[in-house]
Amino acid sequence: MAVCTVYTVQYSLNSTCSISNPTKSHMGFTQKHQFFFYTNKKSSSNYLKKIKTHEISCSSSEEKTVVIGLAADSGCGKSTFMRRLTSVFGGAAEPPKGGNPDSNTLISDMTTVICLDDYHSLDRTGRKEKGVTALDPKANDFDLMFQQVEALKNGVPVDKPIYNHVTGLLDPPELIKPPKILVIEGLHPMFDARVRDLLDFSIYLDISNEVKFAWKIQRDMAERGHSLESIKASIEARKPDFDAYIDPQKQYADVVIEVLPTKLIPDDNGGKILRVRLIMKEGVKHFSPVYLFDEGSTISWIPCGRKLTCSYPGIKFSYGPETYFGNEVSVLEMDGQFDRLDELIYVESHLSNLSTKFYGEVTQQMLKHADFPGSNNGTGLFQTIVGLKIRDLYEQIVSTKVPTPLEATKA
Amino acid sequence: MAVCTVYTVQYSLNSTCSISNPTKSHMGFTQKHQFFFYTNKKSSSNYLKKIKTHEISCSSSEEKTVVIGLAADSGCGKSTFMRRLTSVFGGAAEPPKGGNPDSNTLISDMTTVICLDDYHSLDRTGRKEKGVTALDPKANDFDLMFQQVEALKNGVPVDKPIYNHVTGLLDPPELIKPPKILVIEGLHPMFDARVRDLLDFSIYLDISNEVKFAWKIQRDMAERGHSLESIKASIEARKPDFDAYIDPQKQYADVVIEVLPTKLIPDDNGGKILRVRLIMKEGVKHFSPVYLFDEGSTISWIPCGRKLTCSYPGIKFSYGPETYFGNEVSVLEMDGQFDRLDELIYVESHLSNLSTKFYGEVTQQMLKHADFPGSNNGTGLFQTIVGLKIRDLYEQIVSTKVPTPLEATKA
Repeated sequence: MAVCTVYTVQYSLNSTCSISNPTKSHMGFTQKHQFFFYTNKKSSSNYLKKIKTHEISCSSSEEKTVVIGLAADSGCGKSTFMRRLTSVFGGAAEPPKGGNPDSNTLISDMTTVICLDDYHSLDRTGRKEKGVTALDPKANDFDLMFQQVEALKNGVPVDKPIYNHVTGLLDPPELIKPPKILVIEGLHPMFDARVRDLLDFSIYLDISNEVKFAWKIQRDMAERGHSLESIKASIEARKPDFDAYIDPQKQYADVVIEVLPTKLIPDDNGGKILRVRLIMKEGVKHFSPVYLFDEGSTISWIPCGRKLTCSYPGIKFSYGPETYFGNEVSVLEMDGQFDRLDELIYVESHLSNLSTKFYGEVTQQMLKHADFPGSNNGTGLFQTIVGLKIRDLYEQIVSTKVPTPLEATKA
Repeated sequence: MAVCTVYTVQYSLNSTCSISNPTKSHMGFTQKHQFFFYTNKKSSSNYLKKIKTHEISCSSSEEKTVVIGLAADSGCGKSTFMRRLTSVFGGAAEPPKGGNPDSNTLISDMTTVICLDDYHSLDRTGRKEKGVTALDPKANDFDLMFQQVEALKNGVPVDKPIYNHVTGLLDPPELIKPPKILVIEGLHPMFDARVRDLLDFSIYLDISNEVKFAWKIQRDMAERGHSLESIKASIEARKPDFDAYIDPQKQYADVVIEVLPTKLIPDDNGGKILRVRLIMKEGVKHFSPVYLFDEGSTISWIPCGRKLTCSYPGIKFSYGPETYFGNEVSVLEMDGQFDRLDELIYVESHLSNLSTKFYGEVTQQMLKHADFPGSNNGTGLFQTIVGLKIRDLYEQIVSTKVPTPLEATKA
């Protein structure tokens, strides 16, 4: 937590500052509260060089940037997740205007999503020469990642590199201004301990090998004409590095979304009907896990019955406390898929701690993006719920405002 | 339903009447409402002869008697159930004062429980001579049973025979006055269609063979010194008649309490930890089934978790819709047993439609009779719940009062 809770703040050379722009705030809205920042002890002054071209002034009336980390393998639905998250805040995310058309960044009123591939230290040729994959930490610049995420968190804009996925080269950097919410998504948001410590909330999308394989077959074989053998080979080739560097990050995540084959149909590995588990860490500040019926007990619920008729194979929810990598977690599981709206609103009405602002908000969000992948199953439902929890977390963080001297006097 | 809903009632010789006793009402309390009775078409006038010694007058200001049937094999906890039921109404049940000390009847302010063994047409010797068991309809007088239950239901006292369990003989009859609630308990309350039609509510206590065997061993072997072989032989001897005449009655019951071995401990047949199922028929007038969390869906719930810690093997509840003998039912199941009060109140607070009058009434009733058999498991819990449902049913029936001409004019 970087929100200062003292009334007096000392400004040193090392204290974090923000761009001052009196005509148009980079925050995009009128500041109602005053916020103070304090210095992260680990901060280096290296990044100050990088932002020397921008006008900087220390300010005591800026909001801090909330930083969210989203980890997953390539092609595991991160972009859909980001679209759902952005939608919860009411805006649409677009690449930076007038910039590099191959930029990986997405900006909306409230959020900026940066892709951590931009911190590749080796381009495609470089990786090939050294015989390392993009999954390997050696192909990524974690020092720069840490410096720039820390700068953005503290309200300082940065010139972020761009990894061009089309050419496989590192393009000239783009200016990233500190947003209200910064999402860093990619392969390694929780790999480096310094970057991890900057995260206010972290998510890991954990697609099981069976589902990953089924999805890859569907996409690469059906849509791109690859052979089954080449798909298998490509998965196998990635596996050692994935297991060594990507997968272990899930132990640090505040929330893991696990995607598995259904248990409703015996031996089903088709990847069409999914069993999705929302693993929520207990004791995370500003985050209280969603629950079903009775917080902390173990429940299974088949909502299909007298009030709700579902088609085969139906829907089954489970909820209960578990241990995950030594941490106490609550797990909400959905197996099966929705046929119709009434099933979704019925389910929503029985979940608690959803952080909705009105009855039916989850259903409304899901319907708004009914065309997104996973809108009829647990991936869409849980991504939407996590979006709402992030909004709630953000609002809790910004409401932890520091009283102004006047307010302090009043109290 | 025998409550008349018309304002004008014609009194004929055949119409049902009640004892008039202006100095002390047999109802035991001041009548606040007026109730009318109409004649059951099947009624015969035979029973009028039997009650000719009592003063009779037709009255239009009496409550009707609500009749409850409770079926179970001998030694299956009917008496405990009756004590729990009576307790719900606030009184203690005792044998008729100054009567036969071997009377099977239990009377409290609100309830009279009669034992259907009193309608044995053959005494012990007679059964032995004819080679029939007490379970055999041939050993029972269903005509008399019907006539007397019908009379009591319609407010007419009867001289009921007494089967003396000590001597095995039929003793001289005892006077039974119509109570507010008449419970007929025994082997055959739902066997005869005419008697069955008189029941406002019916319950079947269904003890599985495994549990029955374990209980019998405990009682007859440990406490009475019988041999395992003799216990087995006695169970086997009863089985054909039990299966032919007793067991089929459960299809007619509004509520079945099934007692089975636990599933929490694999292969446990000890009969100590029980799995008890409360099977509740849907669509029964004045009775709405209890449910867990979400009416009509399928749920399992292990309340032991973060808020509640249970000792091994814990407690598991299940709830859901099922079909039972072609009828739609809701089933609430409890497997395991309570260690402490907080477990019980926690469970009570998550059940709905309990028909309690205040928060915690189920727990209060259970604690009041903590020494009764089954107070720490589903038998005690579900017997208590059924007691509350019967009180609710009774109150609904008596509140379906007929407006007096004055009230009708006002409306």
